[in-house]
Amino acid sequence: MTTGSSLMNTVTLTGNEYLLVYNVFSLVVASMFAAFVYFLMNASQVAKQYRNAVVVSAVVVGIAGYHYFRIFSGWSDGQFNEGYRYADWLLTVPLLLIELLIVLGLSSEKRRPLTIRLVTAAVLMIGLGYPGEISTSDSTKWIFWALAMIPFIYILAILYKEITAATKRESAGVAQALRLALGLLLLAWLVYPIAYLFPIIFGEDSSMAETVRQVGYSVADLLAKPVYGLAILAVAKLRTREEAPSAN
Amino acid sequence: MTTGSSLMNTVTLTGNEYLLVYNVFSLVVASMFAAFVYFLMNASQVAKQYRNAVVVSAVVVGIAGYHYFRIFSGWSDGQFNEGYRYADWLLTVPLLLIELLIVLGLSSEKRRPLTIRLVTAAVLMIGLGYPGEISTSDSTKWIFWALAMIPFIYILAILYKEITAATKRESAGVAQALRLALGLLLLAWLVYPIAYLFPIIFGEDSSMAETVRQVGYSVADLLAKPVYGLAILAVAKLRTREEAPSAN
Repeated sequence: MTTGSSLMNTVTLTGNEYLLVYNVFSLVVASMFAAFVYFLMNASQVAKQYRNAVVVSAVVVGIAGYHYFRIFSGWSDGQFNEGYRYADWLLTVPLLLIELLIVLGLSSEKRRPLTIRLVTAAVLMIGLGYPGEISTSDSTKWIFWALAMIPFIYILAILYKEITAATKRESAGVAQALRLALGLLLLAWLVYPIAYLFPIIFGEDSSMAETVRQVGYSVADLLAKPVYGLAILAVAKLRTREEAPSAN
Repeated sequence: MTTGSSLMNTVTLTGNEYLLVYNVFSLVVASMFAAFVYFLMNASQVAKQYRNAVVVSAVVVGIAGYHYFRIFSGWSDGQFNEGYRYADWLLTVPLLLIELLIVLGLSSEKRRPLTIRLVTAAVLMIGLGYPGEISTSDSTKWIFWALAMIPFIYILAILYKEITAATKRESAGVAQALRLALGLLLLAWLVYPIAYLFPIIFGEDSSMAETVRQVGYSVADLLAKPVYGLAILAVAKLRTREEAPSAN
């Protein structure tokens, strides 16, 4: 019988490459849980209508902290389960979009259909990436990469349009913080489709490529979750201050 | 194949030296998590504009508690990963500076550029220390020690200048608490560059030097994080009382 653990990938990195990825994973665990506490403690500092954006930020980094804890533990034991990343993204990517929609200042009539479209596209994007990620065939990897890029571009196009519209409506401070959030998302999200292609470009056996890929995913997750969450919190705090000047 | 665990340093201390470090690490874990709860419970006791200084204190001791828990577990298994200390400092040193800046009472126009300069210097300081720490060559250790001392002195010079200016503006109570925070930082931070040099001065194989070094780092971390956090909390509480006497 095939046991569960024998299905996982064996960690092939050694020496300083192994240790760098090990330390980066541990640093991400610490960062995610630190951000979790920070967001929870700051949720009550923003007006009610934006509070859930901050709560969702906390939930996202909590989910990511859990997954990085499991990834780190596996790595310590010499095993790697790529599935953790996809389970994490399946949960957190829709939530990251929901955070942004809450602080965009849209009417609920406008927000609801936008939420449904973006969440559906996000689930499709992650779902289509997975078969390519686990496949060892280059052509399968390319096909699912191309398919996942369709919802990827669709999401970014909608966000770009909505944020451009919002920055025209809003104060300079809010507009700047919204542009920062979008910029962080763009920067981080560009890492994922590139890191995904590393095994094709450099070969499955390149330890350098695998090291850069794991560190790249980790840095992208830090930018897309805790740092992005700080930008969302900044928008929520600025809006709170602008809408009730006396309260601050 | 080299397994991951064989890459870590093997703990070479034995007998009472091993046991002393073991017990000190465990004491630090308990202290950090105790301080975590205390700071979280006290955050709501200070005015809104200083609250995040206390929340950041909680986050810092939480991150340090996580890293000491991992260091302690490794030590129990006879292994030591110096990377944990650097991952911890990379996250916590910028946060310690941010805490202080929040309670210094600066305008946000003054605070923002100062935050960027100090955080950049802190990241440089830790990043430059690491290559020397993991090197076994004395000359490499000295070079990176000297390089890391540049941002180290830059940070302390800025803090000294800002705190001297603040103590002139502020009440005697706030001034005293700010001087205490700076004094704790100075005292703790002097331990790090000295402990770093122990392997050069006493040789890599001196078990006495390694014992003093690990205990020294631990005591410095206690002074620089929970005890320093108490000084920050004192500043925040005094300011809260002075700015709204009726609220207390």
